[in-house]
Amino acid sequence: MFINAIAHYYPEQVITNAYFQNINGLTEEWMESRTGIKERRKAGPGENTQTMANDAVRLAMQKISFPIEELGLIVAATYSPHDTVATLGHAVQHELPVGEVPVVTISSACSSLLNAIEIVQGYFAMGKAKTALVVVSDHNTRFANEEDTKAGHLWGDGAAAMVITREKLRDEDFEILDILTGGAGRVGKNLEGVKLIPDGPGIVMPNGRDVFIHATQYMSRISQDILLRNGKHLDDLNWLIPHQANFRISKKVAADLKLPLEKVVSNIQYLGNTGCAGCGIALSEHQDNIKPGELAVLCVFGGGYSYGAALLQR
Amino acid sequence: MFINAIAHYYPEQVITNAYFQNINGLTEEWMESRTGIKERRKAGPGENTQTMANDAVRLAMQKISFPIEELGLIVAATYSPHDTVATLGHAVQHELPVGEVPVVTISSACSSLLNAIEIVQGYFAMGKAKTALVVVSDHNTRFANEEDTKAGHLWGDGAAAMVITREKLRDEDFEILDILTGGAGRVGKNLEGVKLIPDGPGIVMPNGRDVFIHATQYMSRISQDILLRNGKHLDDLNWLIPHQANFRISKKVAADLKLPLEKVVSNIQYLGNTGCAGCGIALSEHQDNIKPGELAVLCVFGGGYSYGAALLQR
Repeated sequence: MFINAIAHYYPEQVITNAYFQNINGLTEEWMESRTGIKERRKAGPGENTQTMANDAVRLAMQKISFPIEELGLIVAATYSPHDTVATLGHAVQHELPVGEVPVVTISSACSSLLNAIEIVQGYFAMGKAKTALVVVSDHNTRFANEEDTKAGHLWGDGAAAMVITREKLRDEDFEILDILTGGAGRVGKNLEGVKLIPDGPGIVMPNGRDVFIHATQYMSRISQDILLRNGKHLDDLNWLIPHQANFRISKKVAADLKLPLEKVVSNIQYLGNTGCAGCGIALSEHQDNIKPGELAVLCVFGGGYSYGAALLQR
Repeated sequence: MFINAIAHYYPEQVITNAYFQNINGLTEEWMESRTGIKERRKAGPGENTQTMANDAVRLAMQKISFPIEELGLIVAATYSPHDTVATLGHAVQHELPVGEVPVVTISSACSSLLNAIEIVQGYFAMGKAKTALVVVSDHNTRFANEEDTKAGHLWGDGAAAMVITREKLRDEDFEILDILTGGAGRVGKNLEGVKLIPDGPGIVMPNGRDVFIHATQYMSRISQDILLRNGKHLDDLNWLIPHQANFRISKKVAADLKLPLEKVVSNIQYLGNTGCAGCGIALSEHQDNIKPGELAVLCVFGGGYSYGAALLQR
């Protein structure tokens, strides 16, 4: 599998830590020291997961090297849905000149990008598609409580779109050498670590410590696992692109793996936790820094608990 | 692919048309004549998509012919989620003695059962799983407006669980001979036919006529398509198991296909529209009536728009 194009979108409106200081009573410095976040983007009136996804898709479609009409599959992901019946995937299909290809919308919380890519891998294996669009979009500020001192200030909004092909179409396309996903639905406080009851209290993180412990352990372990099972070692790794949950999590994973922080891609400083979009946005923003032959690992961890990793080579 | 076990759950509480007559002003007879529905089930306090799914799964697990510990994949589906971060799939995994297998939760509205089975087919094709649990669960009454004269009285709650294996384990297991899914995200009033904005107005069906027209056309066409592409004809078909949206839709599809109504499986009379669970519950309830060698088609249509069909043989 190869990545033929990747693009991202995030809203214009910037929300600084100073904004939250007036609402939740935490100091700007405390928020930054505990999360790495200085500011985040907030969707504007009329924006939602569907509009942000379509904005990212439009940019991705400008970069693909085959006719849009040949797109064979759409897998969309969000845990902050605008509409669960007229789903994100169908809203994306609505804007594209594609046929009646399979379309599905998923949520594995913040891990969805990897689950989506693995579903694409399955369609390629069946011969039911040769190309696919993966879209990840989260509208966290819609469901966040700004007064929540535990997690209200963590969240940002954004989307990424990735076009995947079974065959390599261009020299510069990334190869997805391997991918793994897993559900950790029996680990720790898995169903109580992070929750989003959409018609209820929205996003809450009542057990942040449990999330931190398992996120760092799993992201370290699976990053090593996916390298090792492909005959690679940490010394071979050029870039680690983790889920953008909290910069302290990224730093702990880097330390556990003995990776210099320069190899760890991060956008949480200016985007906050953009949910399942974060890792995709990070790859999109960083794509031109990844040189031919270089290896990158995507690794994610999310509510549920859920996790996934992919090994890429340019 | 083979169905090793299928089971279902629906709540105890019965809501009759008489109940709605007092709320929406429609007569019992009118509601029944327009929908086929006489009564539906409503989830009780503390019940939600997760608890109903787990109730169905428990029953399915009593019927499987391999150790639960060997379950290799969980695909759950709902458009009426209790929690979009601690997802339905992870809540199901939480209750089962399984390893850290892939877990994903999807929504293609009322079509999700077929999308879920196709995702399983992909994991089997990749060799990443040999067995899978598919769970479909919808808690429509949580998001329905009982006063809505267009659609408030349509909805019921329920869940079904299906265990699928790559190899045939028992003589009586159904074979899934073929499956197809499609997104019809550019057809009719696709994004405005049925909507569920979970933190907003809930489920609404502002364009029921558009849904009716496309549902009947697609369900007729794809039922024929999946037979024909497998060298079968309508005369060979023993059972049609459609999405349980409205008995008038089922009757129209049967008429278009010149199928006697005795071959069309229906539970909408006593369950209402149970969303993505309806077709699964129907297969579960009807399974013992399907004799060795008989052919059944599952066909679904849902918001988005979305559709899917599967050809089964016992």
